[in-house]
Amino acid sequence: MAKDMTLWWGSGSLPCWRVMIALEEKKLQGYNQKLLSFEKGEHKSKEVMDVNPRGQVPAFKCGDKIINESYGACFFLECEYKSQGTKLIPENSSEKALVLQRTFEGNTLHQKMVDVFMYNRRVPENERHESAFKRLKETLTGEVQMWEGYLQKVRE
Amino acid sequence: MAKDMTLWWGSGSLPCWRVMIALEEKKLQGYNQKLLSFEKGEHKSKEVMDVNPRGQVPAFKCGDKIINESYGACFFLECEYKSQGTKLIPENSSEKALVLQRTFEGNTLHQKMVDVFMYNRRVPENERHESAFKRLKETLTGEVQMWEGYLQKVRE
Repeated sequence: MAKDMTLWWGSGSLPCWRVMIALEEKKLQGYNQKLLSFEKGEHKSKEVMDVNPRGQVPAFKCGDKIINESYGACFFLECEYKSQGTKLIPENSSEKALVLQRTFEGNTLHQKMVDVFMYNRRVPENERHESAFKRLKETLTGEVQMWEGYLQKVRE
Repeated sequence: MAKDMTLWWGSGSLPCWRVMIALEEKKLQGYNQKLLSFEKGEHKSKEVMDVNPRGQVPAFKCGDKIINESYGACFFLECEYKSQGTKLIPENSSEKALVLQRTFEGNTLHQKMVDVFMYNRRVPENERHESAFKRLKETLTGEVQMWEGYLQKVRE
């Protein structure tokens, strides 16, 4: 059943990992996958643009259905294969609330990581500021500390 | 049943609207709501910080459960009140895929809007660049054109 699924992905992309982990957890091994080279610009190739006009990964096709948004793909797989593999959204209301809260909070962590790690790649040299980069790093530090706190609570 | 729900929200906040629309669509009128003043910094008050340590809106409590992430709150309400009010996630696989794709793509549109509209508020004066602001506006224009294309297809 995973044979009619195709995932275009790039190494080091957290949104791609999100979908790959969901596919594994839902026992959908055996899907088609194509590893793209960012350096060669393969994510902007016609093949990918036909599936994801944004020219981004993941690009994900499930039969004739396209869900390129990584969160969307995860929810789609959970809805379509509810009773298969790991239950990604718990039945219990309290656990469900916590899972959904942390799921989407994860995007904030990711965004703040990207802001720091991609600063030099995304911001043209003449627009860079030490003060801006310092602020982004402090914001990320605060975010990571928040997650450390969450993990601490889980351990207690 | 909505009586044990409380939403802290701020005027003009798209993530707040997201939750408010979901509450209405799921026929959960009658929830408690508190409109906060950003100008007065009420979103950083102890009352809000106790619910949402990020000091952001929406802050949303459903009984003893807290889901501040707007997407999380919407999915939580849909899961908990599946057969009540509007079905937010269609049963049909193709429609489901499209709804999930556009739902999360909406966040990209929102982010690009924020980047432009909040530029002067978020970027300190000495770090502002005409070139950066121009690029952000062009990016938003491209995004809006993409959505115009989606709407065009729906109309056809």
